Amino acid sequence: MTCTIGQMAALLGLEYQGDGARRLERVSKLETADEVSLVFLGSDERGILRTGRIQAACVLLPRLLAPPGTNAIFSEQPKLDFARAAAHLHPRPASRGTKHSTACVAPGATIDESVELGPLVVVENGARIGKGSILRAGVVIGEGCCLGRECILHPGVVLYPGVQVGDRVILHAGVVAGCDGFGYVFDGNSQWKFPQVGAVVIEDDVEIGSNTTIDRGSLGTTRIGAGSKIDNLVQIAHNVEIGKNVIIAAQTGISGSTIIEDNAVIGGQVGFGDHARVQRGAVIGSKAGVLPGKIVRSGDVYWGIPVRPLREYKRLNALFGRLPEMKAELDQLKKEIAVLHAAIRGSRPESK
Amino acid sequence: MTCTIGQMAALLGLEYQGDGARRLERVSKLETADEVSLVFLGSDERGILRTGRIQAACVLLPRLLAPPGTNAIFSEQPKLDFARAAAHLHPRPASRGTKHSTACVAPGATIDESVELGPLVVVENGARIGKGSILRAGVVIGEGCCLGRECILHPGVVLYPGVQVGDRVILHAGVVAGCDGFGYVFDGNSQWKFPQVGAVVIEDDVEIGSNTTIDRGSLGTTRIGAGSKIDNLVQIAHNVEIGKNVIIAAQTGISGSTIIEDNAVIGGQVGFGDHARVQRGAVIGSKAGVLPGKIVRSGDVYWGIPVRPLREYKRLNALFGRLPEMKAELDQLKKEIAVLHAAIRGSRPESK
Amino acid sequence: MTCTIGQMAALLGLEYQGDGARRLERVSKLETADEVSLVFLGSDERGILRTGRIQAACVLLPRLLAPPGTNAIFSEQPKLDFARAAAHLHPRPASRGTKHSTACVAPGATIDESVELGPLVVVENGARIGKGSILRAGVVIGEGCCLGRECILHPGVVLYPGVQVGDRVILHAGVVAGCDGFGYVFDGNSQWKFPQVGAVVIEDDVEIGSNTTIDRGSLGTTRIGAGSKIDNLVQIAHNVEIGKNVIIAAQTGISGSTIIEDNAVIGGQVGFGDHARVQRGAVIGSKAGVLPGKIVRSGDVYWGIPVRPLREYKRLNALFGRLPEMKAELDQLKKEIAVLHAAIRGSRPESK
Repeated sequence: MTCTIGQMAALLGLEYQGDGARRLERVSKLETADEVSLVFLGSDERGILRTGRIQAACVLLPRLLAPPGTNAIFSEQPKLDFARAAAHLHPRPASRGTKHSTACVAPGATIDESVELGPLVVVENGARIGKGSILRAGVVIGEGCCLGRECILHPGVVLYPGVQVGDRVILHAGVVAGCDGFGYVFDGNSQWKFPQVGAVVIEDDVEIGSNTTIDRGSLGTTRIGAGSKIDNLVQIAHNVEIGKNVIIAAQTGISGSTIIEDNAVIGGQVGFGDHARVQRGAVIGSKAGVLPGKIVRSGDVYWGIPVRPLREYKRLNALFGRLPEMKAELDQLKKEIAVLHAAIRGSRPESK
Repeated sequence: MTCTIGQMAALLGLEYQGDGARRLERVSKLETADEVSLVFLGSDERGILRTGRIQAACVLLPRLLAPPGTNAIFSEQPKLDFARAAAHLHPRPASRGTKHSTACVAPGATIDESVELGPLVVVENGARIGKGSILRAGVVIGEGCCLGRECILHPGVVLYPGVQVGDRVILHAGVVAGCDGFGYVFDGNSQWKFPQVGAVVIEDDVEIGSNTTIDRGSLGTTRIGAGSKIDNLVQIAHNVEIGKNVIIAAQTGISGSTIIEDNAVIGGQVGFGDHARVQRGAVIGSKAGVLPGKIVRSGDVYWGIPVRPLREYKRLNALFGRLPEMKAELDQLKKEIAVLHAAIRGSRPESK
Repeated sequence: MTCTIGQMAALLGLEYQGDGARRLERVSKLETADEVSLVFLGSDERGILRTGRIQAACVLLPRLLAPPGTNAIFSEQPKLDFARAAAHLHPRPASRGTKHSTACVAPGATIDESVELGPLVVVENGARIGKGSILRAGVVIGEGCCLGRECILHPGVVLYPGVQVGDRVILHAGVVAGCDGFGYVFDGNSQWKFPQVGAVVIEDDVEIGSNTTIDRGSLGTTRIGAGSKIDNLVQIAHNVEIGKNVIIAAQTGISGSTIIEDNAVIGGQVGFGDHARVQRGAVIGSKAGVLPGKIVRSGDVYWGIPVRPLREYKRLNALFGRLPEMKAELDQLKKEIAVLHAAIRGSRPESK
């Protein structure tokens, strides 16, 4: 959805300099920008201002950095405003309202006429799909699922029966939600399956990455809070509760009944034991490990296995790297003490 | 499948108190139980007995804890008996024997008439599917695969050619079994694929979580033993042998030719080098790393990278956390020794 | 594709002894070889030469080890030559040129007549598929994708719009390429999606394992270089550049804009921060962690979190295991120093 520089500045609520009538068609990165590109100047890229080779139609950057004669929209947070601009220039696809002839819709499903169904979509009985949602090729919606408005489900997404999804949710290819959680009780001879008959609720504006798996509650509910964003290949176990606007990077795994409160930021490949709790806004670095039952407090960054506050982790890690020196010092001290013993005894250290 | 409290107690082989004619329709957790719910009292939940607010139709708990006047089935292992009860109240779905009109079955496939085929299922030539199995939407069964009775394959499961699956196996959505293992030989110029022409055998009563991948043997067989349970997003490499009743939590990866013996329990995000062996019943904690060729002995719990017995790991980890104190002590000792040297020399320590 | 021992030796450019007219039908491992099997003698398996029980039609092994009277092809690198032989005996499947009646091909797609389309394949508008490629059941090719010749896409592969794939590429079941990368900017209230409008290029002879995910570039390109091999359940983030002939084992995750240069070898469950760089040919052990921005130098093997050269890592890890002894020594030294102080003062150590 193209617009002029002037229109874009108005949309963003920002001021600009230069040719306000110049047309913007897309966002680009600096290196590949052309005469219809909007770019932004990241904090690492200021060097380009000296060389003066910005090819874009317009650049988003702080007013004080704007080179005279350049088309520029002034922003003190250019990356954020670039993302806002991109939402206008590259809007989410809108449903075409078409139903591919190969889509298999059970007679008891309720699908708004504005919904787009791709080839080979399967919608089972009792499922309901809200206005403007798009189901791409091969999506499977289980019995009794409920999707809100303007969702996009990419190819091969599978919702087990009864999964509830809010509005504007994006599920990338291969996401599985509502599968059985992992719980067994051993009787000494064989494993009995603990019941996995709970619910999954995915709230508004959630986005979930490809091949991520979300188990249904065992007896309760697994919940992904509004606005949270989950990357690819993440595992969310039964009864987990994710708050609002939480960020979870790829390949992280969250064990049963763990709670991640609002605005927490979780790195990649993090592992959570069960019944842990991450308090509001806490940040956990990649590859960290959170023990079962652990409470990770607000207001800090955590790292390591098991997690520690980042400053502590860094100090410990530095000392770990100095273990050889510590060992050498210890050996040296032992020698010196032997010398001292000998000196006091008025004799040479005993050979050992 | 509903029943009365009396019938349930008989089924479990347990005694009860209260209204034996009361009807049970489902299992629930304590907080959401209603007048047709069976609940159990976990060891963490005994506090509720004092407040006396169990809303369920019946509670499974040790006889000594049963409040007078409450409908209760007496169990010394309430979680296990709850799982057994759930298997009755929430039985596995039974095949309806229907074949969706969009299922693509090759003429040379052999499918029992009692099998249920969902929409868009694909069964290739030479495949055989046993009585009462259910293949949900979009499942793909490769040439020559052989499935036993009463299996459930959830949407999007893919079996490459020749995979053998026993009876009552459950494969969750997106499971891939029989894909090529990962082996190449570099000739200095390009990578030659080591042949991946072996087999996959999944024995009876195995359950495998969503998007888990199981490679076929390179020249031999990858085997998942009877009764083993594997969580989501697990990677099982070529020639791995998993014994019986093994538990493997999410996102664990097992490299080629590693052996996990019967009854072992493996946490989440564990990594195994190739040709390792976990002996019968050993327990490995989450995020652990097992070196190639390592033997993990029976009778203990292991943790860490590389794995160590848990007691040793805990001790080392505690000392790791005390490195700053150790460093400070070492520095203090150095000073004291300088003082001692000086005292012996009858002079002040040399300035350095 | 069978051949005689003599033909195989000629094909490999090697000499042989024994019955050159003997027919070879398959590769096998030593234990299960039969009268039409070609086997190789790995360095671990030389013991079998003493027991003399090789049942195979022919064995690949160093000339000096060949038992007289055995059919043998002489190779100083038997595993490599075995892989080369396997490529002849078990060639990649060739396209049958068939189009299953259930395949959904958009009118604007260009598919060579030699292409094989399995059941329920979806090819969207503007996509092009080169000669001899095979798309198995349920593959989804997005708008404008371009595939080269003789590719094999296993069931359920999903290519988002615009993904470019070279020749002879193998994508295993459930691979997702071209999905949105993971980038958001928080405005204090909600997460704005950073644009994910870049490209994905997968070059010739790449093989990618099941359920692996490859994000499209945000503004640039995510690239997998020619001849690289990627295992199952790997995550490749936006703008990552993988060089040529790189090996990446299962469950590894690579964050945005990281570069892995040619011939690098990456173990399983490794995690890379963003903007890291692995130089040509470097080797990184399983479960390692590479910090954002880190440069991993050529010519060494790396291990640990964060990565260190293997020798250093081993030394540190050994010292870590000796922390209890170090602590005990430190305590002992403290005592001895107290004794020395006392001796010098001519008095007993003060009680503390």
